[in-house]
Amino acid sequence: MKPNGIITFTSDFGLEDPFVGIVKGVILSINPFARIVDITHGIGAQDILQGALVLRSSYRFFPPGTIHLAVVDPGVGSQRHPIVVETPMYIFVGPDNGLLSLAIGEEFSAYIIENPNFILEKVSQTFHARDIFAPVVGYLSLGIKPSAVGRKLEEIKRLSLPSPSCEEKKIIGEIIGFDHFGNAITNIPEELIRDKKALKIRVGVKTIEGLSSSYAEKPPLTPLAILGSSGFLEISLNLGSARSELKLKKGDEVEVTFD
Amino acid sequence: MKPNGIITFTSDFGLEDPFVGIVKGVILSINPFARIVDITHGIGAQDILQGALVLRSSYRFFPPGTIHLAVVDPGVGSQRHPIVVETPMYIFVGPDNGLLSLAIGEEFSAYIIENPNFILEKVSQTFHARDIFAPVVGYLSLGIKPSAVGRKLEEIKRLSLPSPSCEEKKIIGEIIGFDHFGNAITNIPEELIRDKKALKIRVGVKTIEGLSSSYAEKPPLTPLAILGSSGFLEISLNLGSARSELKLKKGDEVEVTFD
Amino acid sequence: MKPNGIITFTSDFGLEDPFVGIVKGVILSINPFARIVDITHGIGAQDILQGALVLRSSYRFFPPGTIHLAVVDPGVGSQRHPIVVETPMYIFVGPDNGLLSLAIGEEFSAYIIENPNFILEKVSQTFHARDIFAPVVGYLSLGIKPSAVGRKLEEIKRLSLPSPSCEEKKIIGEIIGFDHFGNAITNIPEELIRDKKALKIRVGVKTIEGLSSSYAEKPPLTPLAILGSSGFLEISLNLGSARSELKLKKGDEVEVTFD
Repeated sequence: MKPNGIITFTSDFGLEDPFVGIVKGVILSINPFARIVDITHGIGAQDILQGALVLRSSYRFFPPGTIHLAVVDPGVGSQRHPIVVETPMYIFVGPDNGLLSLAIGEEFSAYIIENPNFILEKVSQTFHARDIFAPVVGYLSLGIKPSAVGRKLEEIKRLSLPSPSCEEKKIIGEIIGFDHFGNAITNIPEELIRDKKALKIRVGVKTIEGLSSSYAEKPPLTPLAILGSSGFLEISLNLGSARSELKLKKGDEVEVTFD
Repeated sequence: MKPNGIITFTSDFGLEDPFVGIVKGVILSINPFARIVDITHGIGAQDILQGALVLRSSYRFFPPGTIHLAVVDPGVGSQRHPIVVETPMYIFVGPDNGLLSLAIGEEFSAYIIENPNFILEKVSQTFHARDIFAPVVGYLSLGIKPSAVGRKLEEIKRLSLPSPSCEEKKIIGEIIGFDHFGNAITNIPEELIRDKKALKIRVGVKTIEGLSSSYAEKPPLTPLAILGSSGFLEISLNLGSARSELKLKKGDEVEVTFD
Repeated sequence: MKPNGIITFTSDFGLEDPFVGIVKGVILSINPFARIVDITHGIGAQDILQGALVLRSSYRFFPPGTIHLAVVDPGVGSQRHPIVVETPMYIFVGPDNGLLSLAIGEEFSAYIIENPNFILEKVSQTFHARDIFAPVVGYLSLGIKPSAVGRKLEEIKRLSLPSPSCEEKKIIGEIIGFDHFGNAITNIPEELIRDKKALKIRVGVKTIEGLSSSYAEKPPLTPLAILGSSGFLEISLNLGSARSELKLKKGDEVEVTFD
C-alpha cells in the first residue's frame, strides 16, 4: 500500500486550542506536501467509543493509500502503546486503546511505535499527538514502511459495540449517540432489519410504523425511522430534532418488532 | 470557465460529526489534488436564507474557476433537484432550493444532476452531499463540462431577501442576523444610504447619528452604525457586542431617516 | 528566508461566519497554491493576550519559511499599524498591537504595510484581514520581500505576560487560561521549577505534592501538577477537568514552594 499523501485527522482536541494546528505543523515540517483533512475534533473528551464509531463511518470514503490519524488518548504517557496499523487499503495511526479497532478488519499488520528516528527528540508525556504520532505520520506519508516504526504486535485492543439483543420477531437495541441535526443513532445495524416485513419501532411511548426512505416522506415534525448514513437504524424528525422534540437520550431502549 | 482546482464548501453540517470530512474524502477519491476550503459549516440547521447570504458575501473573493459547493438541504431525498450552475466566473453546486440564488446573477446555465456516471453507485436519501454533490464536484474539478451532468434547467428557484421599505426621506428595514462579534446585520444595502446626508439610525429606543467609518472612531461600548463587510448597514458597538448590550434580536426594526 | 508556501492563520473570528473562508479566498486569488493551516479561530473576541500566547506556543512547530498570519484586532481602522515582521526563520503578519510580540525574539525586521500594490484596491475600515493582511500574505508567499510592503519600523508593540513573583523558596503565579480539557495553565514557566526539590503547589485550598510526568500517573480525578505542552506549569486532573472539578478560574493564585 503506497501512501497517496492524504492524511485524515480525528481527535477530541476541540478547535479552541492550538493543538490541532501544532500537530499539522509537525507533519508539514517532515512532509511539506502532505494534504491533511480534518474528520472532526469534536469527539467528546476521552470518549474512545465515539471516536471509534466516527472513524468506522468515515475511513472508507478516502482513496486507497490514505493515512488515518486518530487521537483520543486518556492514557497518554501510560503503558498503552502508540501504534501503526496497516490494512490492505489504508494505514491507521493512534493509541492502542480500541480507538482504531472498529475500522480495522481481520486482515492487518500492527506495529508498536518505538524507533526514535521517527519521533521528536524530546517526547512529552502529555502530547503524544505532537511528539510521536505526528512525526510518524509525516514519515509514513513520505513512504517509510509501517514495519520500520517498531516491533510487530500480534493483536490490537478491540472495542465491542453494545450489541442489540435479537429474538425471533424482535430486536432490542439502544440509542448510542446523536448527530448535529438531532438524529438519534441506534446500535441496530441496517443488515438486521433491511428486509424485514411489517416493522414497528418503539422508542419510549412512541411507536413508528415502517421505515422511511427520506426525511421529506413524512410531514414536518413527525417522528420517523430510517436507515441513515451511519449504517445503523436512526430515529429522526422531518425538519426538526428528534433528540429534543422526543426528549431522547443516550442509552434509551429502541425495540423493533416484525413479522 | 476552466476549473482551477479550488473548491469551497458551505453547509449546516456542524463540525462535531464526520459529515464534512466524508464529503471531502469522496471529492479527494475522484480528484486527489482538489484544494477544498471551508467557508463555514455553522449555518443554522436548515436555514436556507442564512446559507444563501453567506454564499453571497463570500463567493466573489475566490479566483475565477472556483467551484462553490453549498449544502443546506431540508428537502434531501424529496423532489427538489440537485443542480450545477455555471456562471461566467464560477461553478455552483447544491440543491435547487434557493440556496445558490443570491450568489448567481442573470447570466447562468443550470443543469439537473442525473447522469449516473458522476454520482456514487448507491445513493442514500439522507446524505446527498456525500452521494451526489461530492462526486459531481470531484468530476467538475477534473474538467467535465457542467452540461455533462444532465438536462438543462431554464430557471433556478430564487429566494427573496426581506426588502426594506423606502420612502422619500426614510427607509425601514430589519435585523437579519448577527456575526460572531455581535454586530447586527440589517437588510438595508449600502447603496441605499451611502450618499445620504444627516443620517439618523433608530433601533429600538436608541438613535445613532451618522455613519462611522471604523469601530474605533467611537468610545468603547458606544453604539454605532457602519457599512460593514457584509455589504449592508450594520449596528455595532466599539469593543463590545451590540447584540447582547443593546438586546437586539433577529427581525428588530431599523429605521433610517435623512435629508 | 524563503517562503515555503505554508501559511498559518490564527484569529478571533470564530467559525460561524464566512470571515475565515473569505480571507483564504483572497490569499488563494493571489497564490492559488498557498497551503493554509488554521491554528485556531477560537481566540476570545479581542483577547490579544490569549492570541499572543497561542501564537507563542505554536509558531515554532512549522517549517522554516512559514508565514504566520494572526488577526485579533480591536483597533481595526484606527491608528495602529498593520505590519510584517521577518525573523531568521519565519514571517509574521498582523496588527501592531502586541499580538505578534510573544513569538518574536530580539532579532527581527518590522515593516508597516502601506504599499498599495500589495493590498486590495478598496480597503474597508472593518475587515483589514481581508483587505490588507490577506493580500500581503498572498504576495509574501509568492516571494516578495517583506521590505517591499513599506517603511521600516524600529520597534513593535510588546505585550508583557503577568509575571510570577519569585522569592528564595517560593513562587507566586496565577492561572492565565484553560485548555479544552479543563487543564489550568499558569504563568509559571517550566524553567523556573523544573529542577527544584520537594515542590508543593497550592491552588485555593488544595495542595499538590510534587510534579507528575503524565496524567495517568495519578488515580482518576486526582489533582496533579505537570509541566504541560504549553511550556508552563499546569494544574490538571487525570481523566477529568481541573477547571470544573476544582472550580478554578482565570486569575486564581498558584503558590509553589520548594527547598
